[in-house]
Amino acid sequence: MSSIESYLEASRARFEEELCELLRIPSVSAQPAHRGGIQQAADWVAQRFVRQGFATEVIATAGHPLVYAESPPVEGVPTVLVYGHYDVQPAEPLDLWISGPFEPTRRNGNLFARGATDDKGQMLTHVFGAEAWIECKGRLPLNLKFLIEGEEEIGSPNLEPFIRGNRQRLACDCVVISDGAQFGPDQPAITYGLRGIAYFDVRLTGPARDLHSGSFGGSVMNPANALARILTALIDEHGKIRIPGFYDDVVPLSDQERAQLAALPFDQQQYMQQIGVTALSGETGFTTLERRWVRPTYDISGLSSGYQGEGAKTVLPSSAAAKFSFRLVPDQDPEKISRALRSMLAGLCPAGIQLELEEHHSAPGVRIPLDSPFVAAAAAAVEYAFGCPPLYTREGGSIPVVSTFHDALGVDILLLGWGQDDDNTHSPNEKFSLADFHRGIKASCRLWEELSRVRR
Amino acid sequence: MSSIESYLEASRARFEEELCELLRIPSVSAQPAHRGGIQQAADWVAQRFVRQGFATEVIATAGHPLVYAESPPVEGVPTVLVYGHYDVQPAEPLDLWISGPFEPTRRNGNLFARGATDDKGQMLTHVFGAEAWIECKGRLPLNLKFLIEGEEEIGSPNLEPFIRGNRQRLACDCVVISDGAQFGPDQPAITYGLRGIAYFDVRLTGPARDLHSGSFGGSVMNPANALARILTALIDEHGKIRIPGFYDDVVPLSDQERAQLAALPFDQQQYMQQIGVTALSGETGFTTLERRWVRPTYDISGLSSGYQGEGAKTVLPSSAAAKFSFRLVPDQDPEKISRALRSMLAGLCPAGIQLELEEHHSAPGVRIPLDSPFVAAAAAAVEYAFGCPPLYTREGGSIPVVSTFHDALGVDILLLGWGQDDDNTHSPNEKFSLADFHRGIKASCRLWEELSRVRR
Repeated sequence: MSSIESYLEASRARFEEELCELLRIPSVSAQPAHRGGIQQAADWVAQRFVRQGFATEVIATAGHPLVYAESPPVEGVPTVLVYGHYDVQPAEPLDLWISGPFEPTRRNGNLFARGATDDKGQMLTHVFGAEAWIECKGRLPLNLKFLIEGEEEIGSPNLEPFIRGNRQRLACDCVVISDGAQFGPDQPAITYGLRGIAYFDVRLTGPARDLHSGSFGGSVMNPANALARILTALIDEHGKIRIPGFYDDVVPLSDQERAQLAALPFDQQQYMQQIGVTALSGETGFTTLERRWVRPTYDISGLSSGYQGEGAKTVLPSSAAAKFSFRLVPDQDPEKISRALRSMLAGLCPAGIQLELEEHHSAPGVRIPLDSPFVAAAAAAVEYAFGCPPLYTREGGSIPVVSTFHDALGVDILLLGWGQDDDNTHSPNEKFSLADFHRGIKASCRLWEELSRVRR
Repeated sequence: MSSIESYLEASRARFEEELCELLRIPSVSAQPAHRGGIQQAADWVAQRFVRQGFATEVIATAGHPLVYAESPPVEGVPTVLVYGHYDVQPAEPLDLWISGPFEPTRRNGNLFARGATDDKGQMLTHVFGAEAWIECKGRLPLNLKFLIEGEEEIGSPNLEPFIRGNRQRLACDCVVISDGAQFGPDQPAITYGLRGIAYFDVRLTGPARDLHSGSFGGSVMNPANALARILTALIDEHGKIRIPGFYDDVVPLSDQERAQLAALPFDQQQYMQQIGVTALSGETGFTTLERRWVRPTYDISGLSSGYQGEGAKTVLPSSAAAKFSFRLVPDQDPEKISRALRSMLAGLCPAGIQLELEEHHSAPGVRIPLDSPFVAAAAAAVEYAFGCPPLYTREGGSIPVVSTFHDALGVDILLLGWGQDDDNTHSPNEKFSLADFHRGIKASCRLWEELSRVRR
């Protein structure tokens, strides 16, 4: 690996500059105004693969395009599929960014920009890891397939049909995804479980227009009052979700896993400081890590009704809306949850109010066996690059596509997050540690070698 | 009155044009961007009084200016104080207006503009009523004082100190206010009761920034979840407000008043059509009119949290805010309610959440004795202009200043609303019926004559 190590050392500035180039492209998948940025980012990624000799295709979908690339084929070695995404979350609220979300800026060893860690920076570690092999050794030690999508942040609506319709083409021995966080600084981790998600938009409509709250208040159901009541009815004061059957498929935590989670070097005080709260809370009877990783949750992500401007406006609003999601754990079925929610909401909606429920996206949770040889290969690569063995963790977030890969390709998924919990993913001032960026590239180079030796 | 009637007939077009002039001035008191409009409207009103020979003053306050004007003094006749306001509610949401909020437009006998009925149009009926006397008879039959403020829609923060500090100057036999609605089309009313109000802004702050709802959800209290729960805890499912002591000072409705309210020609079906709902609801055990006029209410006027844009954003928001108010009935003390609310919210606020409560404005409810000679004079004036005797009604809205006049000047208040319930007060497409505008002017002319004969 020494020639590769020298190559990586010599390429640091260029790797960073290439990442900045991609970060300058505002590829926000949720906002139609950024359609141009999406196309530009897809083209940039495709060109990047073409330059290192991969057979590359930009594949149109009903939404944003997929970029698919294959390394020059090598016989008799494993095939690995790398998944990533070139789209990013909306950057709003813009006034909270210290430097522009699409003007990558270095501060204190970090690179700040929307998408720095989620997922442009992490995704590129594997592109550069492949480049290093090709430049130093003339070829990769295994076959690589890259599938880089542009709709991850809107729930990958077109990826699942693509994967299910292209099993042959995507066939591989394992999937590698870097789209998450380490356990902490200098605490790399292999994530063996993800939560699922079911995300909804609910809108209540009452009177045909905003009414004067004095003249009309008391005579008619206020949609904002009704929304608060309905949203509150979904969860009890102990953090238990009250949708009938919600916990039916939740497998109880084993004593062994509880002990393993409890042994992780998790510093609750530091965590509170990191996110800026004076107390932690959540479902009664579970530790903080359990509540983050292995228990389902219910969080409102947006509330909107009536007058939100300065001062007082005495209206009884015509409508009220909320965005909310459930994080699901493995074995919970999002469709079953969605049906039960819809039926519960119908029962909760008061007379005089019209309720519309829109389901944005959903995905089941995932769990990977810890005794897999691919996990062992990943652990060796991580230890080589980071200088310490990885921790085995779960993750509270959802990568909707992971369960699809798991199910459609029948292989293990290696979740190797190079980010940090305080990277401000989905928030203003998203960042990626440049040290982690380069260690990620180094781990990726070693990963190709380790995985090339695994025989299923 | 015949010369005055002819004068009114000949002046119709000019009266309307003057109203349009004032409506074109965007005097939104809640929005600092409209400070220029406020000043312009105050000047317009002052100039209007100067033109008809009133001693006029624009009085600076800590907020928006007051316009005060006195007719040339006449000895040995009563003095009447007319109160109105030149400020208007915010016009948002702008996209729901058929014609611009500050571009007065006639459609179907109505004049559409923000402030058409609330209160520019109604306030001017008394200005024109005074003008007609001066032009036709050379002088008014009584002394008139006009106090026109620019902060009614933000709770009149500077008016109460002014009234309390100027009792001598404002001394009068009764106060006349036209800032409300008739019972229905061709059903003029004298309003003998108003609800009070206590309006609040609550903001909950949790984590220092928006968090990824997957990575962090479950570990920390979500301010939007907490807000929904707190807002819901303030009222039970039967519409009873749960603040301790809230109903202590609510005087139970007498059988006589219940019977009188029940006898009013109120068409529930038509009311539902008017506001565009399929069902009415509210506090259990009371009729619709009782719930609108003589029972307290709790209405959320605004909700704001997290991501409200297109698509899904999986955030656990850093903060959540609501605007809400209680409509109070006579004998409830807003300060007592405010203290009880503050104490209840402190108990409801979960660990890890910081709660800020801002009180926007408040006013107690008011009730006027129906056997007052001033009420009889007003009834005669209304019958003369509208061709039928007035109904005696109460009103669900609040005119914060009414209780101050009542208390500080010790006189009866005549609430003579010329508007209609479907005037879209505080909503897009506010309007004022031009027929009501002119009947209001006619009633005002006669009112000066009727009131001039009352001896206290």
